[in-house]
Amino acid sequence: MFLPNWLKHYQKEQLNGDLIAGIIVAVVLVPQSMAYGLLAGLPPEVALYSSVLPLLLYAAFGSSRTLAVGPVGLMSLMTGATLIEMGVTNANEMVSTAHTLALLIGVILLLMRLARLGSIINFLSHPVISGFVSASAIIIALSQMKHIFGLDIPRGLPAYQTFYQFISQIQHSNLAATVIGISSLILLWAFKTPLVKFLHKINISEGATQFISKSGPLAAVSISTFGVYFLNLNAQHQVSIIGKIPAGLPELILPNLDPSLIKELLPYAILIALIGYLESVSIAKSMASQKRQKIDSNKELIGLGTANIASAISGGYPVAGGFGRSMVNFTAGANSPLASVITACLVGLTLLALTPLFFFLPKAALGAIIVLAVLPLIDAHTLKHAWTYDRTDAFSLLVTFFTVLIIDVESGIIAGVIISIGLYLHRSSQPHIAIVGQVGNTEHYRNIDRHNVKIDQQILAMRVDENLYFANTNFLEDTVMRLVADNKAINHIVLICSSISVIDTSGLESLDNILYRLNKANVKLHLAEIKGPVMDKLRGTDFLNNLGEKSVFLSTHQAMLALKVEN
Amino acid sequence: MFLPNWLKHYQKEQLNGDLIAGIIVAVVLVPQSMAYGLLAGLPPEVALYSSVLPLLLYAAFGSSRTLAVGPVGLMSLMTGATLIEMGVTNANEMVSTAHTLALLIGVILLLMRLARLGSIINFLSHPVISGFVSASAIIIALSQMKHIFGLDIPRGLPAYQTFYQFISQIQHSNLAATVIGISSLILLWAFKTPLVKFLHKINISEGATQFISKSGPLAAVSISTFGVYFLNLNAQHQVSIIGKIPAGLPELILPNLDPSLIKELLPYAILIALIGYLESVSIAKSMASQKRQKIDSNKELIGLGTANIASAISGGYPVAGGFGRSMVNFTAGANSPLASVITACLVGLTLLALTPLFFFLPKAALGAIIVLAVLPLIDAHTLKHAWTYDRTDAFSLLVTFFTVLIIDVESGIIAGVIISIGLYLHRSSQPHIAIVGQVGNTEHYRNIDRHNVKIDQQILAMRVDENLYFANTNFLEDTVMRLVADNKAINHIVLICSSISVIDTSGLESLDNILYRLNKANVKLHLAEIKGPVMDKLRGTDFLNNLGEKSVFLSTHQAMLALKVEN
Repeated sequence: MFLPNWLKHYQKEQLNGDLIAGIIVAVVLVPQSMAYGLLAGLPPEVALYSSVLPLLLYAAFGSSRTLAVGPVGLMSLMTGATLIEMGVTNANEMVSTAHTLALLIGVILLLMRLARLGSIINFLSHPVISGFVSASAIIIALSQMKHIFGLDIPRGLPAYQTFYQFISQIQHSNLAATVIGISSLILLWAFKTPLVKFLHKINISEGATQFISKSGPLAAVSISTFGVYFLNLNAQHQVSIIGKIPAGLPELILPNLDPSLIKELLPYAILIALIGYLESVSIAKSMASQKRQKIDSNKELIGLGTANIASAISGGYPVAGGFGRSMVNFTAGANSPLASVITACLVGLTLLALTPLFFFLPKAALGAIIVLAVLPLIDAHTLKHAWTYDRTDAFSLLVTFFTVLIIDVESGIIAGVIISIGLYLHRSSQPHIAIVGQVGNTEHYRNIDRHNVKIDQQILAMRVDENLYFANTNFLEDTVMRLVADNKAINHIVLICSSISVIDTSGLESLDNILYRLNKANVKLHLAEIKGPVMDKLRGTDFLNNLGEKSVFLSTHQAMLALKVEN
Repeated sequence: MFLPNWLKHYQKEQLNGDLIAGIIVAVVLVPQSMAYGLLAGLPPEVALYSSVLPLLLYAAFGSSRTLAVGPVGLMSLMTGATLIEMGVTNANEMVSTAHTLALLIGVILLLMRLARLGSIINFLSHPVISGFVSASAIIIALSQMKHIFGLDIPRGLPAYQTFYQFISQIQHSNLAATVIGISSLILLWAFKTPLVKFLHKINISEGATQFISKSGPLAAVSISTFGVYFLNLNAQHQVSIIGKIPAGLPELILPNLDPSLIKELLPYAILIALIGYLESVSIAKSMASQKRQKIDSNKELIGLGTANIASAISGGYPVAGGFGRSMVNFTAGANSPLASVITACLVGLTLLALTPLFFFLPKAALGAIIVLAVLPLIDAHTLKHAWTYDRTDAFSLLVTFFTVLIIDVESGIIAGVIISIGLYLHRSSQPHIAIVGQVGNTEHYRNIDRHNVKIDQQILAMRVDENLYFANTNFLEDTVMRLVADNKAINHIVLICSSISVIDTSGLESLDNILYRLNKANVKLHLAEIKGPVMDKLRGTDFLNNLGEKSVFLSTHQAMLALKVEN
């Protein structure tokens, strides 16, 4: 019988941590997932269904022991945006399209596993991700203003237009909704640091403190629901409420497999799959490293892929590993995916027995939960850091950030990838080339611009600080020929290859050209400090035959000694 | 008064070479440019007009002393393809659209100069260019079969369809045209090596040999024209002839500046401008290097830009530096752009006085001239070379080659660029990481997999052979953590940075993460052999502060000695 690894080696002493973590995560997950469903424009039960079966599948196939899978902000935002861009407005059609989207995402992740394409996410640089996540968090927070202030702002507008609508409508706020929204925000904020400090002060045990501080969303939901119910705010003051959630566990369904729908959804699904995978892997890695555990990115693709397929066939929408909840799970002491199994069971119980309790739950409170969940994602630190450390990275970050805010999420991520690859290639197309000289009478050779060194007028020793590949071969060739044209005394050039790990075909041809052109100009070329793998490839090429193995030196110093004798 | 540099310092002894080269190039250029006009689907006078004013402008503004500017195969092919794709079929409209295209190309090249974008062509790798040029040469040669065999094959088909049409129509060949075409091919071929060998044998002077061997196209044109005229082949055997070419020098005109036309032409113009610039610069560089001269790629942009604008306003179509003609110019002894000025004057004289002579010129002979001109461009050598040296480069080459043949020229070049950048990034995203050990009792540390070295079980010294940037930071982090997880004895890691020239923000964050994760795992991180510019940037970062400057060692050996003492 198939049993996941963690279950085969399960130890009794892990159970306590898993049980407590599983309960705490469920307490966070139930209100949060309803809020994320709202963000995607889907009914709350769809989000709750996404919090049962997917968790079990991830527990069976994923590689992280503590990643808490379920509805997350970014995926909900992107799902909602996809539905709007496709012009799907009918409620039933929105739900069924969301199922198909989750199915496609699951299949894409499994195909990525088969094609070993997991490493594709490496092309998203940290600054691009930071700009993307910050801007998305702002969009998500802005999108909740209509719930918190009880306004009527259409969904799917670019962020600046949402903001404009919010400002221009704010005088029409619903007072009751605003009171609920703002007090929920204050309550949720108070449950974080202030409450923890207070509980520590009155010597509550660490476990109880943990539990109490994480139940902020539950408290906000309970208090605001009771408030609405007792004061009849929904009827008398038009406060938006969740309404009826059908009771019962999710039923298995077959998502809509209409080929034209699939074709239309595909580009969105690819992008959402990549983002979800990226988010989950980053979170899983940062937790695993703290316990010296490994994350297998291939297993992650299978875990997330099956979780999304499970969500699709059990009436849910796209899921991923959530940052906040995973941290809750981790700090609450989860030792294994059993914690997620317990969470799933509790969400299932909620669906079976507790849905009537949510009838009067005001959307303003859910909006406040989302805002507090996404605010920590706004990351000014990376920008500040990139600005002082590497201005081009800061530039990529800002381009991504503003493209997301002004156009949309998809354009932002694509612009970010293109700009960061372009800037990297541009930088490596003009590599640092140092002319080096001898330090005193040592065997060390250093940059003549940075050190006080001796040079020989007839022998030019230069170090290229980059691989030789198509984008920079012209630059190298031009630099060498310019140096030769400018210094008529030179009759030997030593190319120091200590930084060269790859010479591609263009690089090799360029070396050929350089050799040919230097020969025509009566200058001899030599190489020094070539790495083993590079030399292996050069052996047998015309270039090396023309150059002669005698012109290849192990060290710069050996080259300089030999050439001085020759002169 | 404005005078180009070469004219200010003109020396009498340069005149002889320039005069002879100018005449020889004119002899080649007149028939060749008419043939290229045919290839673009334009009347021969348009191509002749492109061979007067543009040459003068390039002589004034270009930086190469020997580049022969004028109509070339690739630009003619792409111009023809552009006209077909835009659905321009009316003869007058084709000519006026070609003027506008040349104007746009000229303006784009000048704008590239202003934006200092000349280096953009570096992103075309040699294998991609080779695949592109080879496939284009095949397309051009195939497109001439209809002239050589007197068939009726529509223009603008993908290469494989042209080939299919040719094969299926070959039994309908026009016998007279075929005889002219095949005998022109044989004649042109004979004028190359066989004739040169013969002339050398009978002790003809080198100069005369040069001149005679280059007049193959002139001979083919003269003989076939006389043949058609005397045997009345055009009337009796339906051999296609050039017909009437209006006599007189080109007149200055204003190209059509209709904004909607410009908008439609723009993407084509950008691509053609890049290809023309690339071709010209490559040729100019290879010639300049042989005389230890410099090519200023910025001046080239101005030279080619003004040449194309000149072509546009004097009734011509897009021009560039041609490979074959430039070689003729160079080997015939051209010393300065005066040779091009002489060529331009001779083409002007031809337009004034000699156009009636071309009336009976058969298109089959022009087709043969094109085929012989482009065949040397088919380059199997680079493929063979790349195949043995670097399989990924061979892959880029083949993708480009087949995309050009199966789809079209534009898709081919774009596919080639994307695939070569993708493969390079993929390669650098999984850098070579060597674990090193001490060679004997020396201060040298080498790869434990390639050398017999001593290692310390508690100290892991690893060398990363690549810059640390966003695409490979995950790989490094994973590798470090996997090594630590697999070798529980390790308590120190020395990262050898001799190959690292750039650490971008993502790389720095990854180092931060590695440091944090290693600390959690009770392993200490150290750096050795950091380059000056990299260290300059690291100074003041949190990473270096957290690491401590004491953990940065000048050499690997110093690091190992210090850490052994610590253990």
